[in-house]
Formats: sequence, structure tokens, C-alpha cells
Amino acid sequence: MATRLADCRIAVVGLGLMGASLCMDLVQGKHCREVRGVARRTETVLQAFFGGAVDLATNDVATGVMGADIVILATPVRTIVTMLREIGPHVWPGALVMDMGSTKAEICAAMNQLPPGVQPVGGHPMCGKETAGFGAAEANLYCNAPWVLSPLPRTSPDALALAAELATAVGARPVVIEAARHDRLVASISHLPFLLASALVHAVNEVGQEDELVWRLAAGGFRDTSRVAASDTRMFMDILMTNREAVLAQLDAFDAQLAHLRSLLAAGDEAALRETLALSQAKRAAWKRA
Amino acid sequence: MATRLADCRIAVVGLGLMGASLCMDLVQGKHCREVRGVARRTETVLQAFFGGAVDLATNDVATGVMGADIVILATPVRTIVTMLREIGPHVWPGALVMDMGSTKAEICAAMNQLPPGVQPVGGHPMCGKETAGFGAAEANLYCNAPWVLSPLPRTSPDALALAAELATAVGARPVVIEAARHDRLVASISHLPFLLASALVHAVNEVGQEDELVWRLAAGGFRDTSRVAASDTRMFMDILMTNREAVLAQLDAFDAQLAHLRSLLAAGDEAALRETLALSQAKRAAWKRA
Repeated sequence: MATRLADCRIAVVGLGLMGASLCMDLVQGKHCREVRGVARRTETVLQAFFGGAVDLATNDVATGVMGADIVILATPVRTIVTMLREIGPHVWPGALVMDMGSTKAEICAAMNQLPPGVQPVGGHPMCGKETAGFGAAEANLYCNAPWVLSPLPRTSPDALALAAELATAVGARPVVIEAARHDRLVASISHLPFLLASALVHAVNEVGQEDELVWRLAAGGFRDTSRVAASDTRMFMDILMTNREAVLAQLDAFDAQLAHLRSLLAAGDEAALRETLALSQAKRAAWKRA
Repeated sequence: MATRLADCRIAVVGLGLMGASLCMDLVQGKHCREVRGVARRTETVLQAFFGGAVDLATNDVATGVMGADIVILATPVRTIVTMLREIGPHVWPGALVMDMGSTKAEICAAMNQLPPGVQPVGGHPMCGKETAGFGAAEANLYCNAPWVLSPLPRTSPDALALAAELATAVGARPVVIEAARHDRLVASISHLPFLLASALVHAVNEVGQEDELVWRLAAGGFRDTSRVAASDTRMFMDILMTNREAVLAQLDAFDAQLAHLRSLLAAGDEAALRETLALSQAKRAAWKRA
């Protein structure tokens, strides 16, 4: 199989926000030999093909992955796990199989069941937005985003290098880390914020049932803090169910922090409250992607 | 005193983000006869004057409010309360005294102690950003923002109408509600989100002490959900300390919602978890300022 991106036929399975945006970048940048899109719905297949997001499109997975040098699974996490079982017999020996799922442990475990000749690399580009689907796709989505790559013990250095070349080609910055470590970290910075946003919307909704003016007054603070609650429910169900232990641990850690703030406020301990708020103020104001 | 905005001399006390942005709009739109800025620091007085944000500037409050038809207090909440006591003897009879503070009950109570001839109206424009100070000020900040106005029983209809004319002049939409109701609503949509953002930053910081890669991977979900934690600590200390009961009640309501999500996840109750997340997804996606 090809080991340089320029020589590769790439099949992207799933043409939602992440998959379709990747196809657009690969096609527009002429980074590889061919970009094939695989979508469940015929409407998406037609949109992707006639919109020029892909070179070829099909709704048959076996056809899509046939002879591909790189297969990229870009569906919700549990669909990726199912699909890894299905595509095994159809992927050509030596091909690189990647994914773009938001949790890595279950996916990497399923990748380890692929036929021996196949080269698996778990992947997760750390970007996105709360709108989902092909219609939300856009070029340059991956620009400057960290792209986590989780190789398996069986993964060859060449396969990992090819995965990193792909991430770099679309402007992302590869970060190679182990699947379990990835899942622990994203529980804190992605899955916890999602649950907080959902609980906040429910809390405001409760107030709104008594006084609906609350929705009209809601401004920037509510808008930003609740934004990710608008994310695709199915995607997040898969994320939460495949990263349950880490998410529960992060919920408990958050609970302790919020309970601490509450106790300081209830006690009217201004000095300690000010110090605690000043610390998070400084941390958040200083935070930039390295 | 003048009852039409165009005839008014306006004194804005406090030239941070809110006060200075208001001055810019009033001056640029030629909405009134004169705009005076009062700032504590001489540097800000000079910046505001030579930058053209105001017609006149001083760091002496008594001088600033002398003969003004409208006095607008735009400092942190507890400074407004203190200042209301100080300016009482200097404000001319018949003048409108407004404020831009983020909580209203304590301020409106202090406004009621103003000399009998003065016309008080509590105010709170529902906009802003997490950067504070004169340097963060910008024109058109109030465009399309709801601007809460809380008149007192003693406030004349003419004074309330003048306050509404001012809010409308800079593009905001006046919403007249009682102080306690305002404070209850903003506890939910503004003060609670701030505390969640702060606790989230502390939780992520805890993870970061073990594995600092977490800060590098943090992306849009963390960025948005934690944004308001970067807000000015002093401003929020005043907000929290003057709206303690309502904020504690909202913290408890939020806790119950988050505990519910946690229990569904812990139990692996997918159907109920999906339903709960889908509800907040739909509510948040549908939310627009009315």
C-alpha cells in the first residue's frame, strides 16, 4: 500500500461535520490521489458528490473501502465500533484504518480485532462545533487544532507517520497519546462541560416555567456557558456511554469544587471566595492553546 | 430639569467597560447636550477626554454630577451603593439618577435614601464581555441588548420615560421589572453560569496538575463553557455578595439537575439519559433572544 499521502486513495466513512469537512480539505488541497465519501443516506451521497466535497461517493461501505490505502471512520463512537467489525474483511491488507471518534479506549480495543495485515491508529481532532451534519461542514475546520493519534502496540511506525502526515496536511497538530489517557483528559475538558451545559439549561428552564422573561434576559454568560448543550444528542450519548467511569470521576471532582464555592458564599467568607475566584480568573484568562 | 434626552447633560460615573462604552455611543450619536465622564484614576480621565469618549472628564464626583440632568453610576455594585450616599447632596433637584449595576435590590434600596427631589431608576443592560476596564470599551455594545429598568414607587413616569429614551437611543430594548424579580432571574442566567465556569476551571486545573497536556487539548467545549470565569473578580464579588440568597437557591437547583444526569449515567439508563439530553439540546438550540 501507499506510504506517502500524495499516493493514497482515502475513504472517509460518515459525511457529517467532521468527515465531510476533512474531505473538503483533502480535495481542495489536492493532498492525495483520491477522496471517497461513504454516507448512509443517498441524499448525502449526492450532495457530497455534486458539491465537489469528494471525488467519489457511495452508500455501500464495502465498495467505499475497497482498495483504499487509508480508511477513516467518522461516525458516532459506537457506530465506529460496529463498523470496525463489518469492514474488517473488506479492507485491503496493509491499509491504514483511522477514526475521528470522541473517545478512544473502546475504539482502539475494537481496532485490535482487525485482520493482522491492517494498520490501526485511533484518532480524535480536538475541534468541532455544536451544529452537526453534512450541511455544517466547512473547509479549514482542522486548522491549528490538536489531533490526537493513539497507535496500538501492533501499529507500524510508517502507519503512524502516515496518519500524522494526513493530520498535518489539513493544518492540524498531531499529538500522540495513549487511548486511556486521552479519555481521561477529554472527560474533563469536553464531556464534563457538556453535562454542565445540559444541567444549566434544565435549571434555567425550571425558572422559565415560573417566569418566562428569563429567556429574554439571558445574555452572553448563559449563551457561552450553555452552548455545547446544543450538540448532537446521539453523538454525546455514545461519548458518555463509552467513557462512563472517567466522566463520573470528573463529575465528582467538579461537584467538590462547586460545593467549595457554595460553602464560601453561604458563609460569607469574602476573603477566601475572592481568592478562589481570582485563581480561576487568572487561570482562564491566561489559557491559550500551547 | 430637562425631560428630553437631547437637552440633557449626562454624567457617567465609572469609565470601565460599561460606562465608557455608553459614553462613546452618546457622544458619537449626538444623543444629548453633553457627556461628562467621572473616573477614579487620572489616567482614565485623560484617556477618556483625549480619546473623545466624553465631552468633559474629571476625577471629582461632586464636580462631575453638578448640574447634570442625568447621573449614571457605572461602577461595581457595592461602590454604587456607597456612591449613592456620597452624591446625594451634590445631585441637583429633579435629576434622574440611574445605575448600570448587575444586581438591583440593594441598589434600589440605597436609591430610596436619595434626597426627595431626585428621581431614581435602577438599571442593568444585559450585555458585556469578560474583559473589563476602559480599554475594553467599544461603541455599539448595547445594540439589541435588553436593558432592565427598575423604577421605585417614588419614581415619576417622566423619569422612567427618560431612562427608557436613553436605553433606546443606544440601541437597547428597555424591559421594566421589579428589582427582586430581576435579581432572581439573573441569579439563574448570569451568576450561576459564572460559578459553574469557575468550578470547571478549578476542576480542569486539578487534572492539569497531574497531566498538563489537558490545557493543550482543551478546545471549543472548554473555551465556551469556562469563558465567563475570566470576568473581573471584584465585579463578581459584589454581585455574589449582594444576591446571595438567590444565587444559593440557583446553585441548589443546578445541583439537583446535575445529580439527576449523574444518576442516569451511573445507572446506564440510556433511554432516560437520551431523553433528558435531547430536551436540553432542543431548548438550547431553539433559544433566541425574543
